[in-house]
Amino acid sequence: MNVLVLGAGQLARMMALAGAPLNLKISAYDVRSGNLVHPVTLEVLGQGLENGIADADVITAEFEHIAPDVLEVCQASGKFYPGETAILTGGDRRLEKALLDKAGVANARYQVIESREDYDKAIANIGLPLILKSALDGYDGKGQWRLKPDSDIESVWQDIDQFLKTSPQGARQCVIAEEFVPFDREVSLIGARNAKGDLEIYPLTENIHTNGILSVSVAAGDNDAVQAQAEAMFKAVADTLDYVGVLAIEFFDVGGNLKVNEIAPRVHNSGHWTQQGAEVCQFENHLRAVCGLPLGSAKRIRPTAMINIVGEVTVPMNVVGLAHVHWYDKAPRPGRKIGHINLCAESAKALGEALQEVAKHLDDTEFPALQSAAETLS
Amino acid sequence: MNVLVLGAGQLARMMALAGAPLNLKISAYDVRSGNLVHPVTLEVLGQGLENGIADADVITAEFEHIAPDVLEVCQASGKFYPGETAILTGGDRRLEKALLDKAGVANARYQVIESREDYDKAIANIGLPLILKSALDGYDGKGQWRLKPDSDIESVWQDIDQFLKTSPQGARQCVIAEEFVPFDREVSLIGARNAKGDLEIYPLTENIHTNGILSVSVAAGDNDAVQAQAEAMFKAVADTLDYVGVLAIEFFDVGGNLKVNEIAPRVHNSGHWTQQGAEVCQFENHLRAVCGLPLGSAKRIRPTAMINIVGEVTVPMNVVGLAHVHWYDKAPRPGRKIGHINLCAESAKALGEALQEVAKHLDDTEFPALQSAAETLS
Repeated sequence: MNVLVLGAGQLARMMALAGAPLNLKISAYDVRSGNLVHPVTLEVLGQGLENGIADADVITAEFEHIAPDVLEVCQASGKFYPGETAILTGGDRRLEKALLDKAGVANARYQVIESREDYDKAIANIGLPLILKSALDGYDGKGQWRLKPDSDIESVWQDIDQFLKTSPQGARQCVIAEEFVPFDREVSLIGARNAKGDLEIYPLTENIHTNGILSVSVAAGDNDAVQAQAEAMFKAVADTLDYVGVLAIEFFDVGGNLKVNEIAPRVHNSGHWTQQGAEVCQFENHLRAVCGLPLGSAKRIRPTAMINIVGEVTVPMNVVGLAHVHWYDKAPRPGRKIGHINLCAESAKALGEALQEVAKHLDDTEFPALQSAAETLS
Repeated sequence: MNVLVLGAGQLARMMALAGAPLNLKISAYDVRSGNLVHPVTLEVLGQGLENGIADADVITAEFEHIAPDVLEVCQASGKFYPGETAILTGGDRRLEKALLDKAGVANARYQVIESREDYDKAIANIGLPLILKSALDGYDGKGQWRLKPDSDIESVWQDIDQFLKTSPQGARQCVIAEEFVPFDREVSLIGARNAKGDLEIYPLTENIHTNGILSVSVAAGDNDAVQAQAEAMFKAVADTLDYVGVLAIEFFDVGGNLKVNEIAPRVHNSGHWTQQGAEVCQFENHLRAVCGLPLGSAKRIRPTAMINIVGEVTVPMNVVGLAHVHWYDKAPRPGRKIGHINLCAESAKALGEALQEVAKHLDDTEFPALQSAAETLS
């Protein structure tokens, strides 16, 4: 079976590696070059989306910020999973928040902002502090604002107004103001749903970010009640979208009560631990779902932590000996995810010790949050 | 790092899949066509052994029946692991038996036969029944004989004599006569050794063959004393060869005492279970060893059985849902290994039950020995 992936990055690469044993042949459409490439070898297999679609039995995506015309052509082929609506929703905060409301899952209060009136309404109704984000991808590093009680409300509005007026996406762009959620921790849930509505849901992972980038994700068992909440919300969102494939949901945990932060209609960085920690990994289960094969078990087989490799760093040999290193064959650049490390142990306690052992060999500015991650396990 | 594998079959394919996360790039030299190919995509990367050697940082092999001139050129490059001697030994029963004696490990008594005198000596000294095998690859389906007490000694000799006189390998060919070992079961041990002599050894697997082809291999825990014997013999053989890479040893178990049957200087079919059942699989550990990376743990993480997919068969969807299917992307042909299935469970008992569950969905002529395998676990 031939599977075309929109996007030729590490997620397509890991899908190709996971799919090969099932004789699933993955090609990737590089949206920048227009080339069809093999996502592991980067061999150029052809040119142009239309050719990619014609050769594919199934089409899927590794990211959600895809031009609407590309999504439309894929959808028209009848081969596209999770499909246009799911991908558009994942890439548009306005659609995403509407979906969460429609699915009836708890999420931060919000207000869509298209005008100064909307902006004032958000401040009046939700109150400060407010988090403001562009609904679609930002540009020039813009698209996020924060209103605190002492912020200059007028100058932030000037900046938002300018952003909206010059947005390359035109009228599709807007800003979403959201209440600030004082969360205790961030957790995420990855699961697969097939066309029949069957679900395979992985256990929750706890995510530790540094400067907005995921540093460590720990899957070592969670509170049953929290897991049950997360699974119920997952089912509500996935069923509402009639979703097919792997879906990721990020939550804020506020004293044991979850609120959905955001969804990703694809395999997700916080699910990379499943490569070593789960019976069947997220990449294989995504392919099983979109290709109509039976889902594989999402059972965790042992406590596992995932450590991102970000920027211009190397991994010392001691760590290569202790862990599973997954490089993406990407040139290092500051802030760029170029690989990850999966670390497994027989118990949560042993995993905490393993994280501390690994931390001894890694620079804590290059690999932050290892200590914090270890502390969640003690 | 670029690794050239001699041979472009499923073992090279699975090395490529296991090596990609470590940024190890595998190309394969197809000894029949002379092409250099990517062993997963089959993309032709170039032509000719010399070019392959020039582009490689490390050279290894997926099989042992390789022409001596090819081995010589690889050895001369200084990049070849486990190297010419190990591969030659694995492909030549005379060298292999001499190695086992040199390493001081128990093996069936034998006699090298190059003449009628040797043949008579074997019968007189070892006695009947005798197993006779060509030292190098046979041809036209010939190269194996059996002498029972009621066999016609004269006509078997005529056949052997004719075989030796017309052997394409000329004077390098001979026949090895071996005592028949009345074994209780066949087990094998896979392990990795690096250049420093460090070892990572997997637990024993029990192998069930049907018509000379491996049907099922079960890794579900073995007698500690038998495991210790096997590991001591593994170390003796690997150290004697100053071996670098993954080495497989097949044993006869006679009432708890092991005799080495044969060795394979490579990753091995009876080690495929390690893909799901061990911390680091045999393919990754072979690459780690030959590339000078630290070895990964060979610990078994759960009881696992491997079921070969042989010939013109399909695997029903129920089984795809229950197990890990590894296809080799090969055209089905009678007797040809085209894939395997790994089945995991939390205990030996549960694995026996899982084997029986899977057996319900599989034809027992196409997938023989599933019941026998399940019985080893009850």
